[in-house]
Parts: sequence; C-alpha cells; structure tokens
Amino acid sequence: MAGIPRSVLITGANQGLGLELVRQMAEGPSPIRHLLACCRDPDGPRGQALQDLAKRHPEVITVMQLDVTDLCSIQRCSQQVGSLVGVGGLNLLINNAAILLTGTMQTTSPEDMLATFNTNVLGPMNIIKAFLPHLCAAAAASSGMAAMSCSKAAVINLASLMGSMNLAPQTYHIVPSSFSYRVSKAALNMLTVCAALEFQQSEILFAALHPGWVKTDMGGEGGDLEASESAGGLIRVMDSLTEEQNGAFLNYDSTPMPW
Amino acid sequence: MAGIPRSVLITGANQGLGLELVRQMAEGPSPIRHLLACCRDPDGPRGQALQDLAKRHPEVITVMQLDVTDLCSIQRCSQQVGSLVGVGGLNLLINNAAILLTGTMQTTSPEDMLATFNTNVLGPMNIIKAFLPHLCAAAAASSGMAAMSCSKAAVINLASLMGSMNLAPQTYHIVPSSFSYRVSKAALNMLTVCAALEFQQSEILFAALHPGWVKTDMGGEGGDLEASESAGGLIRVMDSLTEEQNGAFLNYDSTPMPW
Repeated sequence: MAGIPRSVLITGANQGLGLELVRQMAEGPSPIRHLLACCRDPDGPRGQALQDLAKRHPEVITVMQLDVTDLCSIQRCSQQVGSLVGVGGLNLLINNAAILLTGTMQTTSPEDMLATFNTNVLGPMNIIKAFLPHLCAAAAASSGMAAMSCSKAAVINLASLMGSMNLAPQTYHIVPSSFSYRVSKAALNMLTVCAALEFQQSEILFAALHPGWVKTDMGGEGGDLEASESAGGLIRVMDSLTEEQNGAFLNYDSTPMPW
Repeated sequence: MAGIPRSVLITGANQGLGLELVRQMAEGPSPIRHLLACCRDPDGPRGQALQDLAKRHPEVITVMQLDVTDLCSIQRCSQQVGSLVGVGGLNLLINNAAILLTGTMQTTSPEDMLATFNTNVLGPMNIIKAFLPHLCAAAAASSGMAAMSCSKAAVINLASLMGSMNLAPQTYHIVPSSFSYRVSKAALNMLTVCAALEFQQSEILFAALHPGWVKTDMGGEGGDLEASESAGGLIRVMDSLTEEQNGAFLNYDSTPMPW
C-alpha cells in the first residue's frame, strides 16, 4: 500500500462486514484521507454503532446517508463526496450493501427477485456511474503511479461463492433457499467483468471479492468466519491487487474463485 | 429420441431462431403431439410468418398469445396449455424469448436494465413456475422412461456466450454494447443451475444452450450462422441430453461452454 492518504467509500457500512471494514481501515496502518461510511439510515437505531465508531475517528470517518436503491440519494451523496474529496478524487469504492431474501425458485416471488436485483445489481451499477467522475479524478491525480491499484482508483464489488455456477452443485444443498441472492450475485459478477473491460483505459481497477461465510446477520450462525477475520483478509487482498487481477473473482484469502 | 409423441412449448416463436425451431420441429422426424408456439402478438404483422407456418401444420402447431413480462398472460397461457396437453403434460419448455438493448454500462439506463431483467430472467422464471404442473405431469406420465431427457420433461433456456464471464475478455471488444444483455444472461445461467438442482427430484431436466452467433434481427449481420443451422444443432443437442447434462451450459454443437 502506497503511503499517500487515500479516500475510500463503503456502502452498507452500518453493520456486519461493512462496519468491520470501516473499523479496520480507520484503525489500520494505511493512511486514509476520507473514509466515507454510507448507510440508508445513519440517524436511526441501526446506524448507532457506525456513529459511535465515527466519533472515535472524527478526523477520518464521515458518515453519509446513501440508499443504494434510490437514484436521488446516490446523486446527492456523489455531490457531497465530490465536495469532500476535491481534485484528489475517490480512490476506492466498495459496493458492500446487499440483501439476501430467502426462498427457492418455487417460493421466491417476482417482487423479491426485483428487490434483490435492485439492491444487489442495479445499486452497484448506479453507484459506479454516479461516482465515476471522482474515480476518474483519483486516477488522474495518481497518474504518477504506474499500474492499477486500490490506492489509485478501484471498485470492489462484494461478491459471493453463492454467485458461482461452478460451485453451485457443492453449495446448493447447504443453502438452497437463496435463489434470488445467487442469481443477483452471478449478475453482479458479470457487471464486474464488463466494468473491468469498459474502464480499463480509465485505469480504474474492478474486482469481485468473496468475503467468506461470515458470522453476521446475513451469513447467519452457520458462518465459519468472524467478520474481523474476513474484513482483515479483504483489506489484505485489496492492498495486493494489481492490473493482473482487473476483473477477477477472488476469495478473502486471495485465492481465485471459479465463476 | 423416443417414438412417443411429445408436447413442446416455445416462447418468442414468431421470428428468428424461435420460428426456425418451430419449423424444424414441425417438419422433423420426431413425432410431436402439440407444438405450442407462443409470441406476444400472434395476430399482429410480426406474427404473420408464424401463422403461415401454423397453417401448413394445423394438426401439430398451436399459436398462442404469451407476453413473458406479463404474469396474467403467463397464467392464462398455462391454463390453455393444461387443457390442450391434459394428463400427458408438457415435455419440453423452451425459453427462447429475449431482448437485447444496446449500451455499455455507462450508456445503459436503469430502465433498460430492468426491462432486460424482466424479459430475460424474470420471464423464464415466471414461465417455469407457471408451467411446472404440466412439466411434472409429463415426468409422471413418462415415469416408465429411466432417465431425464427432453422427451420426458425438460426446460431449455436459450443462453448466450455473452453471458460467459470466462469468455468476456475475448467477446467484450467484439460486442461492447451489450452490457444489460450480458448481465441478464449470466443471471439466467444461474437460474438454470439452481433450477436443475431444485427440480432434480421431480425428474425435470434443465439446460442452458448457446445458439451460436446467428444471423437474425438480434444477432445482426455479423452473425456467422444461419438460423436453420443453429436450430438444427440445438434440436440435435436437445435430443441428446441426459441427466448427466442436467444444469449444463452447452453450445449448439453440444460442446460445453465455460460459465
């Protein structure tokens, strides 16, 4: 990781893995200029833990309102971020916010499919598009750096092994009731791959990272990993990414995942 | 292919590959009991070629109205199909209808993403769910047959190499403006994989087939394959499918495709 302080934005930062990523980045060794911690309702009870964390690091963490399913909210947040980061731009955007509605194909309603697609696929797409000027600004401001990296300009999409077609025969019977989530995560993987190719010339790196099966509200008690371990692994992977991993799908321990 | 006449339903049957599949199945050697050729507007000008074809095979082809984005239309069609096929059920459902809206990620609107998801992913899902009783009836009526096959009970989802993450680095620069289509086809592949696992015990076979790059309205003039050649290949692949290919992603020449 380069020594230049960078600006990072995380969605879904109020709980679980998102909150842990904010904590470890704020307290970690890599210098941070702005850590923009976004969630839907920062002033509600579910935003309390993030607010408490931000009070401990007021010079680094800025808590921001962002509903990934609301284009107006995304645009407003992007404008605020633009004012904060200025010409230095946004170096790292972490699309972490996601929902998991339970159901097999037979028991999943069209409404649940659309809600999942909206949050887990359209949300990251609209956010990437809205924050693109800030990512481009960061790439330009870091043009002295040779290659792509999460210190220069990058988008990390939190993916899942449940989005892997190759692994589905092994994972399906463990979690059969995650049809809409699986479909959305496969779609998000394609989004990552396309974006990596589309924005290669802008020197913005894209990668899909699987956080492991984490013990959070989403992962449930069956998880085999503490959020702290997963977040630590993800941060190490992000710090190690180069242009060779542009468009890659990697586990939190940096091993490649099959599509 | 077994000699027992089977019932087959095809969506998007009024043009391109769908129409050619209907033509070859109606005129081919495999005995067909009912060939249910569905399209959005069978009585409009875009349904004329299908109506003409149906007039040449009135004993086999039934033209039906089906809008894959309209739940009421799907339910109504399923009821009509139930009356037609009776206890023999529906042996083969081919989800062929799809849209391709052009655009890169930057130039694709949320509305185009949703329209594509609705037609290319939710459509097949809602159709599979609505026709499931007829597919189960076919599986039960063919319980004498040992294994899974397209003569017993099967769903074929028309997939695309553009939905392959593995092949995206090779295909992206040939067709960069197909972002929403790529994302939807990756999502459809996961749907196929999940459905194959979910309905394994019901003895319904699922597969995703890539038709090749066909010279149709969708494929454009850059296509390297006549619709007749593609349809012929797809029919041969369908006739050859066994339970070993349940959940597989195959080319029209039966070679496996990478996810």
